[in-house]
Amino acid sequence: MRVAILGGTGDIGEGLALRWAYHTSHDVVIGSRDAQRARSKADEYETELASRGDETAIEGAENPEAAAEADVVVAAVPAYHLVDTIEAVAKGLDAETVLVSPAVGMQRDESGMHYNRPGAGSVTALAAEAAPDEVPVVGAFHNLAADELANLDVELSLDALLVGDDEDAVERVEVLAEGIDGVRALRAGSIDNAAEAESLTPLLINLAMHNDDLQDVGVRFV
Amino acid sequence: MRVAILGGTGDIGEGLALRWAYHTSHDVVIGSRDAQRARSKADEYETELASRGDETAIEGAENPEAAAEADVVVAAVPAYHLVDTIEAVAKGLDAETVLVSPAVGMQRDESGMHYNRPGAGSVTALAAEAAPDEVPVVGAFHNLAADELANLDVELSLDALLVGDDEDAVERVEVLAEGIDGVRALRAGSIDNAAEAESLTPLLINLAMHNDDLQDVGVRFV
Repeated sequence: MRVAILGGTGDIGEGLALRWAYHTSHDVVIGSRDAQRARSKADEYETELASRGDETAIEGAENPEAAAEADVVVAAVPAYHLVDTIEAVAKGLDAETVLVSPAVGMQRDESGMHYNRPGAGSVTALAAEAAPDEVPVVGAFHNLAADELANLDVELSLDALLVGDDEDAVERVEVLAEGIDGVRALRAGSIDNAAEAESLTPLLINLAMHNDDLQDVGVRFV
Repeated sequence: MRVAILGGTGDIGEGLALRWAYHTSHDVVIGSRDAQRARSKADEYETELASRGDETAIEGAENPEAAAEADVVVAAVPAYHLVDTIEAVAKGLDAETVLVSPAVGMQRDESGMHYNRPGAGSVTALAAEAAPDEVPVVGAFHNLAADELANLDVELSLDALLVGDDEDAVERVEVLAEGIDGVRALRAGSIDNAAEAESLTPLLINLAMHNDDLQDVGVRFV
């Protein structure tokens, strides 16, 4: 598979790029609004892989170019950039492209982090609204521990939740998720169930704030 | 400690009663709107314990009587009975009683289960509004796997999330939670953070619906 990670220069994007390049044979392309920045990050990830004897090549390109050739496009951007990012790449998406939304809308107050539910019902639903009608959308990778994911020295033991209305698309993302050693993919139903999956992210942040031994926290369902 | 479990005849109440009686030296009293039903459930739990060679006595009483003598009162009733239940026992609560709210408001649609956030912000906040001002309220035990909890043959490995504004009260509930073998208590902050903890329950139900190997699902933060 060819996977484009838009916003692949940010924390969750970095981890997904490194893990897919390191653990799988999928082709990874980093997307950014700035082609130069995308290439420079791709080079950085290649250097990290090379230091482990892995000569996998990672490409870097502007978001539209990265998305146009991909089988799966991961919009690893903050929720408030999501619609703009999807609109910028929409021409290159079609029914054969799976669009993955890992973003969560949150707001912080003095008590902690809170889920900021968009009018669409969830950020995944917002992505589905912004994408061309024929493009299947899957919500996934909201709740991975970003620092652990990006540190290839860490052996993962994490669950990734998937929500989506198109079974083939969900299966494709399941294959991607389980390609990462130590990640188990779990189905959480249709996009109508996305808010419950996305709400877990602010909870993880609140737990990290209040428990010294949970600084980069992920989740396992048992 | 003396723990009253109001609604101790329901699923999560049953599990908490059995586990505290079996694993700890805390006194457990089952509360119900019907004293006879409370005593009959208490007898049933005693029989279950006796079958394991444990002669711990469990009391049963009407809710107000059960609550009046307790150090900790767990309102293990459905969310729509919560306010009525608290009002019925309010006279017996004071600043020395900790009120624990494990209830979650949910609604089901064709996709799955959804968090039904009350106007108060969370069910725990609703409990705090319904309780007399001086009574400290802690949200806890929303996300334990009820069938596993109630089956003393099962060795647990679950996290219990605690939210509360009164540190002494949260500590008392932490002691209760960690008294159960295999349960780890985690702080999730103040009652303003309760919605994020409560939202995990419908997610667990959705995961059980969509994953054959997760039929009575709990959670571990890692």
